[in-house]
Amino acid sequence: MVRYAKRMENIKASEIREILKLTQMPGIISFAGGLPAPELFPVDKMEAVSRKVIQENGRDALQYSTTEGFEPLRKHILKRMEKMNIKTSVENILITSGSQQGLDFSGKIFLDPGDVVICESPSYLGAINAFKAYQCEFREVETDEEGMIMSDLEKTIQNNPNAKFIYVIPDFQNPSGRTWTLERRQRLIELANEHDLIIIEDNPYGELRYEGEHLPAVKSLDTEGRVIFLGTFSKTFAPGLRIGWVCGEGEVHNKYVMVKQGADLQTSTISQRELSAYLDDYSIDEHIDTIIEVYKKRRNLMLDTMAKHFPQDAKYTVPQGGLFIWVELPESIDTTEMMKTAVEHKVAYVPGASFFPNSMTKNTMRLNFSNMNEENIVIGIERLGKLLKDAL
Amino acid sequence: MVRYAKRMENIKASEIREILKLTQMPGIISFAGGLPAPELFPVDKMEAVSRKVIQENGRDALQYSTTEGFEPLRKHILKRMEKMNIKTSVENILITSGSQQGLDFSGKIFLDPGDVVICESPSYLGAINAFKAYQCEFREVETDEEGMIMSDLEKTIQNNPNAKFIYVIPDFQNPSGRTWTLERRQRLIELANEHDLIIIEDNPYGELRYEGEHLPAVKSLDTEGRVIFLGTFSKTFAPGLRIGWVCGEGEVHNKYVMVKQGADLQTSTISQRELSAYLDDYSIDEHIDTIIEVYKKRRNLMLDTMAKHFPQDAKYTVPQGGLFIWVELPESIDTTEMMKTAVEHKVAYVPGASFFPNSMTKNTMRLNFSNMNEENIVIGIERLGKLLKDAL
Repeated sequence: MVRYAKRMENIKASEIREILKLTQMPGIISFAGGLPAPELFPVDKMEAVSRKVIQENGRDALQYSTTEGFEPLRKHILKRMEKMNIKTSVENILITSGSQQGLDFSGKIFLDPGDVVICESPSYLGAINAFKAYQCEFREVETDEEGMIMSDLEKTIQNNPNAKFIYVIPDFQNPSGRTWTLERRQRLIELANEHDLIIIEDNPYGELRYEGEHLPAVKSLDTEGRVIFLGTFSKTFAPGLRIGWVCGEGEVHNKYVMVKQGADLQTSTISQRELSAYLDDYSIDEHIDTIIEVYKKRRNLMLDTMAKHFPQDAKYTVPQGGLFIWVELPESIDTTEMMKTAVEHKVAYVPGASFFPNSMTKNTMRLNFSNMNEENIVIGIERLGKLLKDAL
Repeated sequence: MVRYAKRMENIKASEIREILKLTQMPGIISFAGGLPAPELFPVDKMEAVSRKVIQENGRDALQYSTTEGFEPLRKHILKRMEKMNIKTSVENILITSGSQQGLDFSGKIFLDPGDVVICESPSYLGAINAFKAYQCEFREVETDEEGMIMSDLEKTIQNNPNAKFIYVIPDFQNPSGRTWTLERRQRLIELANEHDLIIIEDNPYGELRYEGEHLPAVKSLDTEGRVIFLGTFSKTFAPGLRIGWVCGEGEVHNKYVMVKQGADLQTSTISQRELSAYLDDYSIDEHIDTIIEVYKKRRNLMLDTMAKHFPQDAKYTVPQGGLFIWVELPESIDTTEMMKTAVEHKVAYVPGASFFPNSMTKNTMRLNFSNMNEENIVIGIERLGKLLKDAL
């Protein structure tokens, strides 16, 4: 009999994973994934930069390189962080294999069994699963249209002196699509300072804003080096390269580097150099503008179609950016149960339960609007609307 | 004050890491790394396949893909495993970001704090560091020219009922360069079966044999699905792509997949597709033949030069393959201490102490012969020989 580590009791095959596999079947319109639109990938430019990297530095591109990451790429990232008003230095930036790896490392670096992670309710299921592997507990903090509710956060901190960090996604949150106000961000920093807590700020979508004013990253308000910022090129460029980063200050950065070394030595040299060459030769800001234009249309269309076809008592968020709309249904509906029928009707979503580490709210779902074209958005939402009306 | 997880006490900046950074300085002849020869990388062929992947499947290559890995690549790996007489199936192969990631996952899946890992003495320092992060203890088993000494292994197993797995590198071991005999491999399986233990077989160099007969992988002798095989293309192709694999059976495979999902979702889609296209279009066996020819010459030259210039009482292994020669010096020499002088004399090696999790033998060093050209091998070994003679 194989004896696994105790942590493996927390790492279970996701009950929805098998159902989500069905969403790959032909004919299914899936709003389930968090996938970018592949037709927007800058394929021709990637061909040019990949040729350049191999022709000019083929040997270096195929060789081992430093754990910290390719320095010119780290400099590009520093510039992007500066645009977000974040003051740091290249020395504090570690390239990771997607920001999922930054989440895993955060768990590994901070969490002993029984330690508490404070997070938004709901929160990103990939983060919940990454942290769970370190046998932590979760305390969910109530959220509203303005982000985490600060009175509830304060109470949660007071009740959990063994909390290690607060995990937040302040911009176009996954799964809710909501964005924190400036006041909430400032108060979060105050509370973290007061109670000596680390903040993990996960920001995969911040640059994908379709309306309203850009708000400062929590890290830009940090004066004590207690915010660890996780970034990625998965949504603004392409996820297949697996390039993300962690920005933490000094000693904290060193811990991430040491953990990275044991975990996989380094991120793909060739992927790093290709992305860096793209950032040298082309404007990613222009590329992001293109993405924004397309996703904004898709969001609007999905919202319009939902307004027409969803039952009256379905509530949903109106995200100012990002990839997701969050739907709250009457309590009689269990969206996990409903998933099988949905797949039969050739439409898919992610049942909301997975986004609640403790409370397992059953009547919610997450819809992605970036990956399906306009025609499919209309057809898929019509199908889903019919399904919901039938279920009520 | 930042409160880290307890495991972080085990993850310390390697004392030699700073010294090894010095080995990057111009003019230093370094036998320290485990780097392949970059002049042998198939750069032109990589250019062709990377163009092909982007032109034919650019969108898929830049998109998210499955955690298990790109199926055609897994099929290629299956064929390579079959050449080693290992009977398994594509379903049991998980693509990892180098085999270092397979080591980290092995620790994560099996090790609770205080659990025991049984390993060769000496053993690969990257594995020791990966496992240490899971707060395990190590029991080193004595080795000789034929591999692990089986009577010592048996005693170690009996004394450690909380041992979780036996970690071995049976072919051209890192750091010793030694290869296990068939008898030892068979006895290892017997003991593992008898005591219900998992074996982690790490095989990065097995295909790089310069003389003698190929020996069956431990996994090929496994009848109970208790050997987990870690492979990689880092030494036979190029490490910059970060492509390795784990082969474990059924349930064990599923655990690795779940852990991979939380750790980084998947390995770079584009790297996987590029490697797979290379394996479609070219013969990696021919490429490996080229590597073998060059490394064999370098090994021979290094051994010849050592015979001429090393002090009489320096003992060293004569590896039949792989990348490393292991040197045992008189006990008066502390190779960690000597490293600073070595760098001043513009030559570098890895002090042996890091390869012993407990016993910290001080009078050993690991020399790499794959990464330096013939001229530098002669000059570097002459420098090192002089240094050793001066130290005695």
